[in-house]
Amino acid sequence: MHTPICDDLGIEFPIFAFTHCRDVVVAVSKAGGFGVLGAVGYTPEQLEIELNWIDENIGDHTYGVDIVIPNKYEGMDSNLSADELTKTLQDMVPQEHIDFARKILADHGVPTDDSGADAFQLLGWTEATATPQVEVALRHPKVTLIANALGTPPVDMIKHIHDEGRKVAALCGSPSQARKHADAGVDIVIAQGGEAGGHCGEVGSIVLWPQVVKAVAPVPVLAAGGIASGEQIAAALALGAQGAWTGSQWLMVEEAEQTPVQQQAYAKADSRDTVRSRSFTGKPARMLRNDWTEAWEKPENPKPLGMPLQYMVSGMAVAATHKYPNESVDVAFNPVGQVVGQLNKVEKSATVIQRWVQEYLEATNRLDELNAAATA
Amino acid sequence: MHTPICDDLGIEFPIFAFTHCRDVVVAVSKAGGFGVLGAVGYTPEQLEIELNWIDENIGDHTYGVDIVIPNKYEGMDSNLSADELTKTLQDMVPQEHIDFARKILADHGVPTDDSGADAFQLLGWTEATATPQVEVALRHPKVTLIANALGTPPVDMIKHIHDEGRKVAALCGSPSQARKHADAGVDIVIAQGGEAGGHCGEVGSIVLWPQVVKAVAPVPVLAAGGIASGEQIAAALALGAQGAWTGSQWLMVEEAEQTPVQQQAYAKADSRDTVRSRSFTGKPARMLRNDWTEAWEKPENPKPLGMPLQYMVSGMAVAATHKYPNESVDVAFNPVGQVVGQLNKVEKSATVIQRWVQEYLEATNRLDELNAAATA
Repeated sequence: MHTPICDDLGIEFPIFAFTHCRDVVVAVSKAGGFGVLGAVGYTPEQLEIELNWIDENIGDHTYGVDIVIPNKYEGMDSNLSADELTKTLQDMVPQEHIDFARKILADHGVPTDDSGADAFQLLGWTEATATPQVEVALRHPKVTLIANALGTPPVDMIKHIHDEGRKVAALCGSPSQARKHADAGVDIVIAQGGEAGGHCGEVGSIVLWPQVVKAVAPVPVLAAGGIASGEQIAAALALGAQGAWTGSQWLMVEEAEQTPVQQQAYAKADSRDTVRSRSFTGKPARMLRNDWTEAWEKPENPKPLGMPLQYMVSGMAVAATHKYPNESVDVAFNPVGQVVGQLNKVEKSATVIQRWVQEYLEATNRLDELNAAATA
Repeated sequence: MHTPICDDLGIEFPIFAFTHCRDVVVAVSKAGGFGVLGAVGYTPEQLEIELNWIDENIGDHTYGVDIVIPNKYEGMDSNLSADELTKTLQDMVPQEHIDFARKILADHGVPTDDSGADAFQLLGWTEATATPQVEVALRHPKVTLIANALGTPPVDMIKHIHDEGRKVAALCGSPSQARKHADAGVDIVIAQGGEAGGHCGEVGSIVLWPQVVKAVAPVPVLAAGGIASGEQIAAALALGAQGAWTGSQWLMVEEAEQTPVQQQAYAKADSRDTVRSRSFTGKPARMLRNDWTEAWEKPENPKPLGMPLQYMVSGMAVAATHKYPNESVDVAFNPVGQVVGQLNKVEKSATVIQRWVQEYLEATNRLDELNAAATA
């Protein structure tokens, strides 16, 4: 599965692993793939610590950092500093939403402690708060790729990253968005189908991938959404992608920080147990359906706020996911794609990479044998 | 792309074309694929006429017939005859729904004539009304496959079809439904992802197909949902399917009966212009979004009824689609999958088959070259 993008980035397999766990980044890159650390939620200082740790443990391998600057978010037209913007946004969150969120948690016996909107800092999610994260990332030479998870990165930021000798990637859910990325100078377009975990559109991967490949050629495309096996990578490459951008699988590896309760929930779920919900981030994101996501769907309840306001409300549920994993099992934030139905056990990251390579070869051999039989 | 299923059915390419037009059935089978006529909407007498015409024009080739018997529908537990059931169901349609449907059409300047619930016969859609269609199909020896579009066919019907020496296929949207099909004796399972036009589930093809292949092995699986090119067929075969079940493409061929207005609507649409809506059949089906589908989504309006009641309401819009194509453009029934975004022109059916075969070879060659480069 060696494609030109492997040579561009100096990696063995075009398998990109998005994760919030530094251990997974290291394990994947050392196994021949390319680990990408999701920076959202880290202060610049925390991010510096994470990247230092990765640098020390990853050897000669390289890795990426993923940031979140949506094309549209509350407060995006203001010229406020990160701190001012955070305060302004905190004041915009209706008390009704905070009270409703606290009630959902209380009804499930989850302590809400002192979690109001004011307890949450804006760590990423906007240009003002993501830019310092980019600055941190650029101080680390082994970071060879910076990806934006939502929208086209600002052109100044793209130029700055290029000037530092790194590549820029951006996710998209339509060929028109992909074209905007390419026109802005993005080096790698990630076409993410509606099967994906986290923020995603509605068009399925099998339809979206080839449309994006054609829309931005010769810019290389990575396929995302619905990939957690080597045969799914073979399908992506058959459709013209140069590699796979994957996420859900890396929640189910030994190196991940997921709690056992979360991993059990993922292992138990089938592919129909996810939902595209605005209840955590304010934009549609795919996750396990549970009492939290259902509560925000009911017509009589408050509607989710926009991004990033809703996160100031849902943050207390996210915090509870980590602090009270057992109590919060039915209200936890469990972002994952539809491939969750094929994730039934926890493996080592290196084992996953080896398995995918093997499955890829089996799938392409299957096609070879069909062609050979047809011409025999 | 020659797979074992080609030998089982005596066809050259495992390309199955679902269509309501007899001309398309003939053109596809003669070009080496396998045409399948959708029987819903035909009286047994009309169906007999269509199949006679196909028999006379298809030469030595074979074809299939597709029926609709959902696993759940209004009135399914009654022992009524087809006529009694139709009358009973007509009486169950609330006048409010008829009035609302008439109003939508009138607001768009579409004549509603004498179209009430009583104007519609139940042609297919239930076991009682689909069984006579199966009897007609079995009188035609060139019909070698009977497929059920919704749910597992009744076991008696499967046995009857087998006794007549024909094969049975059934569509599914989950591995558990696929397993039920296989356990009931279905010969070919069609795994249909959420990208598909018409009735479909929510799990994307890239995730669903390999799950179904594993769930029913060694029963052969056809991939459906999101296929309108040879590279998409290559992806399906890489994921273990033995062929492709396709529909949307055949709306955009010269042999199809679609009106120019409909074909223009399909050509103009991109992949985000479809919606899964219950507004025509009562079960979620994918179609172009328009004023009709939107009207049935609004919270203040009547909710769609169950299957087959909703069709007794929507039938007047379907009739208008054919009778007043220009007036009804914004309220017409335009079932189509997300691949509509890649359908921009009307081709000959034989040209489509040839193009797909060529694209398939290009896609598999691309994979060969990657493997060759990696081992060089």
